[in-house]
Amino acid sequence: MIPSFSFARIPNIIFGAGKLNELYGIIPKFGKNILFVIGENSLKKSGKWEEITSNLESKSFNYSLISISNEPAPTIIDEVATKFRKKNIELVVGIGGGSVTDAGKAISAMIPKEDSIKNYLEGVGSKTHDGKKIPYIAIPTTSGTGSEATKNAVISEIGPKGFKKSLRHDNLIPNVALIDPELMIPCPSSISAACGMDAFTQLLEAYVSPKGSPMTDTLAFSGMKYINKNLLSACSSGASNIEVRTAMAYASLMSGITLANAGLGIVHGLAGPIGGLFDIPHGVICGTLLAEATKINIEKLQELGSSGKEGLRKYADIGVLLLGNKFVEQGKIDEYCSILGYTLDGWTQDLKLERLGKYGINIKDIEKIVEKAGLKNNPVNLNKKDIKTILINRL
Amino acid sequence: MIPSFSFARIPNIIFGAGKLNELYGIIPKFGKNILFVIGENSLKKSGKWEEITSNLESKSFNYSLISISNEPAPTIIDEVATKFRKKNIELVVGIGGGSVTDAGKAISAMIPKEDSIKNYLEGVGSKTHDGKKIPYIAIPTTSGTGSEATKNAVISEIGPKGFKKSLRHDNLIPNVALIDPELMIPCPSSISAACGMDAFTQLLEAYVSPKGSPMTDTLAFSGMKYINKNLLSACSSGASNIEVRTAMAYASLMSGITLANAGLGIVHGLAGPIGGLFDIPHGVICGTLLAEATKINIEKLQELGSSGKEGLRKYADIGVLLLGNKFVEQGKIDEYCSILGYTLDGWTQDLKLERLGKYGINIKDIEKIVEKAGLKNNPVNLNKKDIKTILINRL
Repeated sequence: MIPSFSFARIPNIIFGAGKLNELYGIIPKFGKNILFVIGENSLKKSGKWEEITSNLESKSFNYSLISISNEPAPTIIDEVATKFRKKNIELVVGIGGGSVTDAGKAISAMIPKEDSIKNYLEGVGSKTHDGKKIPYIAIPTTSGTGSEATKNAVISEIGPKGFKKSLRHDNLIPNVALIDPELMIPCPSSISAACGMDAFTQLLEAYVSPKGSPMTDTLAFSGMKYINKNLLSACSSGASNIEVRTAMAYASLMSGITLANAGLGIVHGLAGPIGGLFDIPHGVICGTLLAEATKINIEKLQELGSSGKEGLRKYADIGVLLLGNKFVEQGKIDEYCSILGYTLDGWTQDLKLERLGKYGINIKDIEKIVEKAGLKNNPVNLNKKDIKTILINRL
Repeated sequence: MIPSFSFARIPNIIFGAGKLNELYGIIPKFGKNILFVIGENSLKKSGKWEEITSNLESKSFNYSLISISNEPAPTIIDEVATKFRKKNIELVVGIGGGSVTDAGKAISAMIPKEDSIKNYLEGVGSKTHDGKKIPYIAIPTTSGTGSEATKNAVISEIGPKGFKKSLRHDNLIPNVALIDPELMIPCPSSISAACGMDAFTQLLEAYVSPKGSPMTDTLAFSGMKYINKNLLSACSSGASNIEVRTAMAYASLMSGITLANAGLGIVHGLAGPIGGLFDIPHGVICGTLLAEATKINIEKLQELGSSGKEGLRKYADIGVLLLGNKFVEQGKIDEYCSILGYTLDGWTQDLKLERLGKYGINIKDIEKIVEKAGLKNNPVNLNKKDIKTILINRL
């Protein structure tokens, strides 16, 4: 039986190598006074930013520029929103990795407000954002967060009392997601690996989520298929191959669409608190935890007996997919689940995903992380001991 | 290689049995002054309209009502748009089959204009609609056209100089698609059959379209899977089974999303002119032509040799799906293509889809239809003789 479901609007998607050039035709639909939010480095280094500005100038667009380094903190968003509040900005364009596209999303939502973003963050403030925003175009330069298609912007305050929380509203889904895989070619392999694992985690967690629908299932599966064939290559010999980068960009887009509509699981339930307490890139957290979390989820579902079967079947589907075999034989579910587990172990190793200890987390921090962890839409209940095991296995 | 593609925004989808009740919570987001567009019969007969009005009254919404019979003509749309132009309508809600939801879509787009819809119809008028409209909620009561998710409204003027043409703009995609399979239970089996075949045609034509992307492919495939399992049942013993109706409603929704983004083929290239010249329900035209058109497309691809292989593979995928087998063996492509052909022949027979002759079309009309036919995004070129053969085989 197909369950009841809701599916939020997706952005207008423009996808393909060289599509950045369409930006200049899209801008006038929104106005002429644009705020660009970009990262600190890559876009400028690659010469792309120069190309963009020369195009903007030739079209006589008025534009302002803000650079974002690291994952966006509330103070940065407040500062930028305040600065541009009275400047009649008609369009915000964010070009960069997930931090930048999330920052752009948050800025576009906070320019029309009068107070701090902290008041609207889930689990931090007491207000609910009403979705009013300046139109927003997201242009990703990494294949990872899928932020170009999601309804939330993740905002971080890192430290002992730190948090990593979302500003969320259906209307914060970008108006346009312009995805040009050429922009991803310069992305270094360690970042491609972390982002690719983040995308795969999002697809997998959405696929096994009890909040999923046939629509999110089929989109998530389609994304995982492309990651399976291209992830290792995108982080090594295929880094400059546009076909490989295109496949990863597509998978990342699918991950954003599916997480927005089916939710996520324990890996993201841990990535929030870990990312708030420690300065570790989000993709690294997801990548390093995924295999362990998946194996424990499978174990817990196996312990449930018949009531865990539907959940196991979902994991088995992914095992079959990774094996490249197109059909699941009845009775082989456990076998396919273990194929999934050891394939993910292999990726963790091949992609050299760092352990948490490398970033200064040690055994005495585990309790605090577990305390703050959430299960989100994990397909099976995990107790504190289970969550602790996931972390310790990747310390 | 994933090709470049665009994907338009989809509606905010609210899907599931009993979800009609959410309408009253959604309306206030748009306003309090609503124009309802409904069909002539079914909604009133089933008592649903009474239920709706009593809810609207209890919430003190102001509403006006327009009933639409048959496929909408330009004169009807103009008349309604003129009548409500100065009435401060804040929301249009269309509840009915494809004709009604298309009429609602067209009315919501024409209220803000000052002239006739004819000026904006593709291939009829010389103006392009700018997408400005009154917000629109589509609530389908049949599982067929997928109009609740498309960006066009089909408008018909039937007669010797008749046409069936679209008003089209990305922004005409309904703001909300509220899909409640309970509303489909009263749908008689002949209409369920025609609509179900229309939905399957849309999914198949989008799946084999060269304009498709992995995203439309996966959504189309997901829709076809549910039609394969439920179509015959929805038109017979399963007509009152909510699980069956839910599956068909999901497939129909997928057909709207995929046709809007991948286009259609020769069956719809014929349905336009036939529907303009003769008074035949759109679903009947599609249903009666699909098997023949599919067989001729496959034949033509086979004649192409190696350059037709990719196209044949797509048809073979569908053959495999209909067979319920999950993998395609290399070399068996032709076999799976013929399975597709004879399965569709079987459906045509089992669902008692009428021949064109039944609606007064005879051999001397064929030339005129062929003259007006378009290939749309058909995966292979067809000449006039091929198109004639499709028609003659279903005369």
